[in-house]
Amino acid sequence: MNRTINIGLFGFGTVGQGVYRVIEQSKNAHARICKICVRNINKPRTIELPAGVLTDRVEDILDNPDINLVVEVVDDANAAYRIVTSALKRRIPIVSGSKAMIAPNLPELIELQEKYDTALLYDASSCGSIPVIRNLEEYYDNDLLLEVKGILNGSSNYILSRVFDHNDDYGSALAMAQKLGFAESDPTFDISGLDSLFKLVIITIHALGVYVAPDDIFTYGISTIHNADIRYAREKGMKIKLVAQVVKVSDSKFTMFVMPEFVSPSRYIYSVDNEYNGVVIRGECYDRQFMFGKGAGGLPTASSILSDIMARRYNYRYEYKKRKYIDRPTYTTDVGLRVYIHFESTDITTQLPLVKIHEIYRSEDNGSYIIADINLSDLIANKEIISAPDVFIANIPRFFLDRDD
Amino acid sequence: MNRTINIGLFGFGTVGQGVYRVIEQSKNAHARICKICVRNINKPRTIELPAGVLTDRVEDILDNPDINLVVEVVDDANAAYRIVTSALKRRIPIVSGSKAMIAPNLPELIELQEKYDTALLYDASSCGSIPVIRNLEEYYDNDLLLEVKGILNGSSNYILSRVFDHNDDYGSALAMAQKLGFAESDPTFDISGLDSLFKLVIITIHALGVYVAPDDIFTYGISTIHNADIRYAREKGMKIKLVAQVVKVSDSKFTMFVMPEFVSPSRYIYSVDNEYNGVVIRGECYDRQFMFGKGAGGLPTASSILSDIMARRYNYRYEYKKRKYIDRPTYTTDVGLRVYIHFESTDITTQLPLVKIHEIYRSEDNGSYIIADINLSDLIANKEIISAPDVFIANIPRFFLDRDD
Repeated sequence: MNRTINIGLFGFGTVGQGVYRVIEQSKNAHARICKICVRNINKPRTIELPAGVLTDRVEDILDNPDINLVVEVVDDANAAYRIVTSALKRRIPIVSGSKAMIAPNLPELIELQEKYDTALLYDASSCGSIPVIRNLEEYYDNDLLLEVKGILNGSSNYILSRVFDHNDDYGSALAMAQKLGFAESDPTFDISGLDSLFKLVIITIHALGVYVAPDDIFTYGISTIHNADIRYAREKGMKIKLVAQVVKVSDSKFTMFVMPEFVSPSRYIYSVDNEYNGVVIRGECYDRQFMFGKGAGGLPTASSILSDIMARRYNYRYEYKKRKYIDRPTYTTDVGLRVYIHFESTDITTQLPLVKIHEIYRSEDNGSYIIADINLSDLIANKEIISAPDVFIANIPRFFLDRDD
Repeated sequence: MNRTINIGLFGFGTVGQGVYRVIEQSKNAHARICKICVRNINKPRTIELPAGVLTDRVEDILDNPDINLVVEVVDDANAAYRIVTSALKRRIPIVSGSKAMIAPNLPELIELQEKYDTALLYDASSCGSIPVIRNLEEYYDNDLLLEVKGILNGSSNYILSRVFDHNDDYGSALAMAQKLGFAESDPTFDISGLDSLFKLVIITIHALGVYVAPDDIFTYGISTIHNADIRYAREKGMKIKLVAQVVKVSDSKFTMFVMPEFVSPSRYIYSVDNEYNGVVIRGECYDRQFMFGKGAGGLPTASSILSDIMARRYNYRYEYKKRKYIDRPTYTTDVGLRVYIHFESTDITTQLPLVKIHEIYRSEDNGSYIIADINLSDLIANKEIISAPDVFIANIPRFFLDRDD
């Protein structure tokens, strides 16, 4: 089907302008941007736009009969929700990159796509230019899949790379990341692991066909990492990275979480540095696939949105095939983990239900740490204690699944 | 569309048995193997098959009205050609992994798909479990793509890894590769670069929409590599890898070739070792995507074939979209390369039309080498001279495009 795609674009920030540029560059896209809806129409812009393209009236796009595809790249999740649901209810297919809006609302968004027989595509919402969603939905459309694990947030990864590869301290690394614009609108969104969490939720429904609400998933960021933790990792020849993972722990169960992890040089993700993202897809028969690329930035994200736009020329939509699978695995947090816990004033050893302490180190100057076994559900139950500024937790991965990705 | 896929399978070697196992394991494939056609029906087999499944009569599959998908994994390219063309002419969709059959016959195979309105899928033909073809066709369905470059042959890569990482000499590394079954039926097929060439031809039509016949592409293998070359690369802190690449050299032109290349540690493919494959997809806006995985072996290849089988449940077929692009780039061999040439008795300096010699080293014991500029078309024209057993050529990549993939 070769009709031209007439696009109504919401948002004209870094990504929106990237989309505009990418479509201009792509002679064969057979797509054009008819209208661009922005909050402040009078704001000065670097890109010269034809007269009448800019508007601040949502209806100019949603009620425009010429427009057959909406692209939404606004920065405000609530606005994105209103735009996406309105478009779907008008049976207008829509491409969105808003993970913060999609992840919490996926069940409703899937229902709306079915009810109004239209499509919502969002490959750009996870790992920018890396085609994770599309491949999980289409290519890994079978039940051989065992695990998806990766570095999904470029901003926190950039900070940790500065710390481990350039010996910056955490504070100046964070400042540098913000200066270079690698952070999302709110840096805590990246550093707290929330950004990775939302991506993981979206990935999981395409990986295993199961939706787990963000609130039900253990998420622990890097904001409380201490120099002592960095020193400890270095001494072991490891890096600490913020890792998101969904893993089948048995034929019928899977778990998922976002937390810092000790990564040894033998793992693929060890070499995923700076603002890059890297995803390992592991399955029976094909073992491990590693995908690596730019996870953020205006143009990489825009190129991913272009892929979704062009897929619409062939009426592509997610079938959410795996949701129809027989005996899909169920989500569990009853999983034993081995973790490193740094602490100072908070006495972790008495306040956490540890299964077993393997190592303990106490120091007045450096702070103390333990290597201990704990159940994932107990980490969730005690989130407040482990969120104290003197505490830092990192996963030691070889424990609950013996693997070397 | 949820009909069951009833498969007629041709070939029951390593891959064929892998396909059988993978489909058995994949509860949600909704696919079953009805018939398996083999050359020798009486050959003893490790897998227990239900009575009546095995046959040696092609018609039992091609004339069987119950069968709605043919999967072809026979080892003989001529037999594969007969099976695939017969299936297409009967409008039976077919999945094939036979790069040696597909690459030389692609134009005819595309024509047959259009004429008989049916599908031929062959993702397994390139890089086993890495979804290169599908991503180039669907996800990189735009003209931002600038380059596809990679290690496409696991067997030759295994040999070179043994040589560079384990200090084996070439001969014992080759023997080891054959012993472990990493080699295709004929090892020269891998070592000569032919296997990589066929994959590159298939990749190129999905990358740029242009078909180039294998005979028109410079292909140089690793069979004449000398210890001196290995020593030289090591001294420079580099590895020599057999690299296949298709690269846009201008807006309107692209080139492609398969030859050994000096790879520095800063390149993604430097770390692609042993039997693994790695592909770098470079484009405007998204920069570089790196895909890494198992390129060969029964089960990885079978998992890729399973992806094609399941795609047929949704009537997926290649649209060869980029063939319809306006102003597709044209193939050129008029490209300057900088190469390393090892030689002993053959006096390369007088026999090749070198543009410029940058370095020359002469030795009675180690053999001699030059670093020189030469036009790709002149390498093709002088293939006989550079194929002498005392000669070895490797590309020095930074020259004709300044990049660090």
